[in-house]
Amino acid sequence: MGENNLSFLDKVLNIVKDERSEDKPLIEFKHPKELERILDLDISEGVTDQELEECVRQVLKYSVKTNKAVFRNQLYSDTDPYGLSGAWIAEAFNTSQYTFEVAPAFTLIELKVLSHVLKLFSIPDGDGIFSPGGSMSMLYALVAARFKAFPEVKSKGMRNLPEMVIFTSEDSHYSIKKAAHWLGFGTENVKIVTTNEKGQMITEELDKAIENAKIKGQYPIMVNATAGTTVLGAIDPLNYIADVCEKHNVWMHVDACWGGSLMLSSKYRNRLLGIERAYSISWNPHKMAGAPLQCSLFLVRKKGLLHEANSASAQYLFQQDKFYDVSYDTGDKSIQCGRKIDAFKLWMIWKARGDLGLSQLLDNVMSIAQFCQQAIAKRPGFRLVVDSLQCPNVCFWYIPRFMRNQDEDDTWWDIMHKITPKIKELLTLGSLLMVAYSPLRHHKNFFRLAFSFHPKIDEKQVLGMIEAIEKCGEEITLDMLQ
Amino acid sequence: MGENNLSFLDKVLNIVKDERSEDKPLIEFKHPKELERILDLDISEGVTDQELEECVRQVLKYSVKTNKAVFRNQLYSDTDPYGLSGAWIAEAFNTSQYTFEVAPAFTLIELKVLSHVLKLFSIPDGDGIFSPGGSMSMLYALVAARFKAFPEVKSKGMRNLPEMVIFTSEDSHYSIKKAAHWLGFGTENVKIVTTNEKGQMITEELDKAIENAKIKGQYPIMVNATAGTTVLGAIDPLNYIADVCEKHNVWMHVDACWGGSLMLSSKYRNRLLGIERAYSISWNPHKMAGAPLQCSLFLVRKKGLLHEANSASAQYLFQQDKFYDVSYDTGDKSIQCGRKIDAFKLWMIWKARGDLGLSQLLDNVMSIAQFCQQAIAKRPGFRLVVDSLQCPNVCFWYIPRFMRNQDEDDTWWDIMHKITPKIKELLTLGSLLMVAYSPLRHHKNFFRLAFSFHPKIDEKQVLGMIEAIEKCGEEITLDMLQ
Repeated sequence: MGENNLSFLDKVLNIVKDERSEDKPLIEFKHPKELERILDLDISEGVTDQELEECVRQVLKYSVKTNKAVFRNQLYSDTDPYGLSGAWIAEAFNTSQYTFEVAPAFTLIELKVLSHVLKLFSIPDGDGIFSPGGSMSMLYALVAARFKAFPEVKSKGMRNLPEMVIFTSEDSHYSIKKAAHWLGFGTENVKIVTTNEKGQMITEELDKAIENAKIKGQYPIMVNATAGTTVLGAIDPLNYIADVCEKHNVWMHVDACWGGSLMLSSKYRNRLLGIERAYSISWNPHKMAGAPLQCSLFLVRKKGLLHEANSASAQYLFQQDKFYDVSYDTGDKSIQCGRKIDAFKLWMIWKARGDLGLSQLLDNVMSIAQFCQQAIAKRPGFRLVVDSLQCPNVCFWYIPRFMRNQDEDDTWWDIMHKITPKIKELLTLGSLLMVAYSPLRHHKNFFRLAFSFHPKIDEKQVLGMIEAIEKCGEEITLDMLQ
Repeated sequence: MGENNLSFLDKVLNIVKDERSEDKPLIEFKHPKELERILDLDISEGVTDQELEECVRQVLKYSVKTNKAVFRNQLYSDTDPYGLSGAWIAEAFNTSQYTFEVAPAFTLIELKVLSHVLKLFSIPDGDGIFSPGGSMSMLYALVAARFKAFPEVKSKGMRNLPEMVIFTSEDSHYSIKKAAHWLGFGTENVKIVTTNEKGQMITEELDKAIENAKIKGQYPIMVNATAGTTVLGAIDPLNYIADVCEKHNVWMHVDACWGGSLMLSSKYRNRLLGIERAYSISWNPHKMAGAPLQCSLFLVRKKGLLHEANSASAQYLFQQDKFYDVSYDTGDKSIQCGRKIDAFKLWMIWKARGDLGLSQLLDNVMSIAQFCQQAIAKRPGFRLVVDSLQCPNVCFWYIPRFMRNQDEDDTWWDIMHKITPKIKELLTLGSLLMVAYSPLRHHKNFFRLAFSFHPKIDEKQVLGMIEAIEKCGEEITLDMLQ
């Protein structure tokens, strides 16, 4: 055991700075078995502080530097330094957020952030909670919708309720399927609505699907609209969906985990018009807005519903004979018992930057994505999957020279389907760029370059990413694809 | 917006050190409305770094110092400094744990920690996952049990399945009720089994309850045994419960969120004998073992079940045409998509201290609790709720002098019921001690002094806590209880 163990924390800032410094590569990729051999991960014996530092530095050496501009593999990237500061303070204060007595200031901070966000989303009288990620928020949404329709579900369960069906677009996030399993709806009761070429739910199809379900005697429990699909970044036509939901009296949830950050921008928030008609909304500031993982909000229009649906009134924690106003004990709204003070990270970012600062930050994100989209549109060998840019997702294929000017038949596309992952492999092994790829509907594997908060990203770096893809693409031969 | 915003992180260590220093009081309690007036929480405008620092320091001034020995309000307290170091690094590296490519070293760390823990719990061939808290682990357990019995639930939902019932003791944690609601069982299908005076489930009652359910045509889906109840710290008779579960072929889950840390101690782990017969186990190292919030494991005996039950095979994330061994993409076992690398905090603690260091640490926790229990047992005016100590929970009343030597009739107990919260109020307002209180079954409000990882706690401090309770208890008059 390290003897001066209280001092290890003093080393952390330096370790982090060293291992995330500019000169470190994005990734030193090793295959799993090889990395297992390299790293000293055994925990049986205990080591000195110096040995621990060496092990940790080794772990970080082989970890992905998500702070680099060339980390574009996911829908998050670098963190806002104010957010990271908030995260560090939150960890140090090790506060669980259930009662006012143990989290007095942090409870007020969560309430303040929620109230500010609810106003921003134009549901000022609503309620909300921070949850550990967008998938959890999806569970919250379905639970809220179900409880609103059938409050007896809380005590009686699902067995005697009508068969409920959930509607979502084919481009929406998979968390709705996991939620449908967990909550007892079953994945078959998630009804998939087709999208247009841009990835937006086709409202007429939704309307038809709900009609069909009703004819079958099924109960339409929720429509999940997406504001920012995972791959294309499509924003469903929220106002039209709201019309359909109103017509059929169905709970409208908007999964704005990705696109919700556009609400911060005075220039782009009108892209989410109609979101204010939703019954519930999820938004992950840890994606586009640079809050450290995890920072995810679930918002609900109807005040009191979260508490009514989720409370268990545990006597040991939510005592009603406390000496202060226990309406500030907000933890019983949550499915969690212990809960991190994720609101504090977001509060730090917002407090430092203000509404205006955040608006500019999101404008920058969109502006760099637009630059990237335009650069790709006009560059030989690149082909966009969708012309328009809704969220900052730029989706495209790179067609190596040997593949150009050919019949684009099934065989050709089968080869393209292999080329994209191969380019990704070369990019990763060369530590040039980490970028996502995916098939989607009839589309074969293509790249998704998504942009989110990054203080240092500029047009030159974006061109560098494009050139890296081009360079690796031209290294590929047919032989390599076997 | 702060101009030198990248440097704010440099200030954090000092802010944290200052605001958690020895001379700071445990709590400067303000009522919610008053605290709202004191704190400058508005986030509309943006502030300079200097202003931000002032606001943050103000927030921390009115936050509870969970690092102090006198913070005994919950089942967690100070954090292990290695764990906190791990948490800071994890936040800085901002890694999400779903695929090997974005979390190569951290994926191996999670696998290593899981494998070590599975061995420790004597289910070496099992599987596991880190989840955001014990309540989430309870959801995992019920989902696993249900999927094992009725795999069709994933696609078809709950409607056509038999009526399922869940068994748990009356002293168990409320998360099982929340889980029963969310997952569609309904809280009425949580069958409460009575406990003995020590708070342990009475096995014969469990057997009877299962028999009764079967007679009614209900399907017993899971027995939730508790190793370390929230209030008394009772450990259910695990081997006997395992016998009953085997007899009836029911999934046995052990909620060892609190008591599971005793497995770290070579001296005390035999208290959990029988846990190796469980089908699933939850354990929160963020409680007794000092990992920062949140650090919670869900373990399952049957390998492959987590993946089979929870996977959705999202094409954009878990592509099967990657260039490395995708069996290391472990994220599809999870209900979450993005997921923090909580394993790293625990790995840091374990790597630094080793099995032996952790064993000693837990021995210290138990030893200080035993000292407290004995000191309270022999001190006039104090009365233990339970004589024996199973987990480090010391539960007791303080009977002020004016209440002693009287008939302990209902009226007397009604007064005691008010005295406990009043003492707590005085302790809190005086910043002397934060301690939990609770009613339980027929017991009126009593105190729970629970001990967990704290590097500095000693017998003198424990006596100080007892004296503080005594002092505040003697300040109370009947008039104050109106």
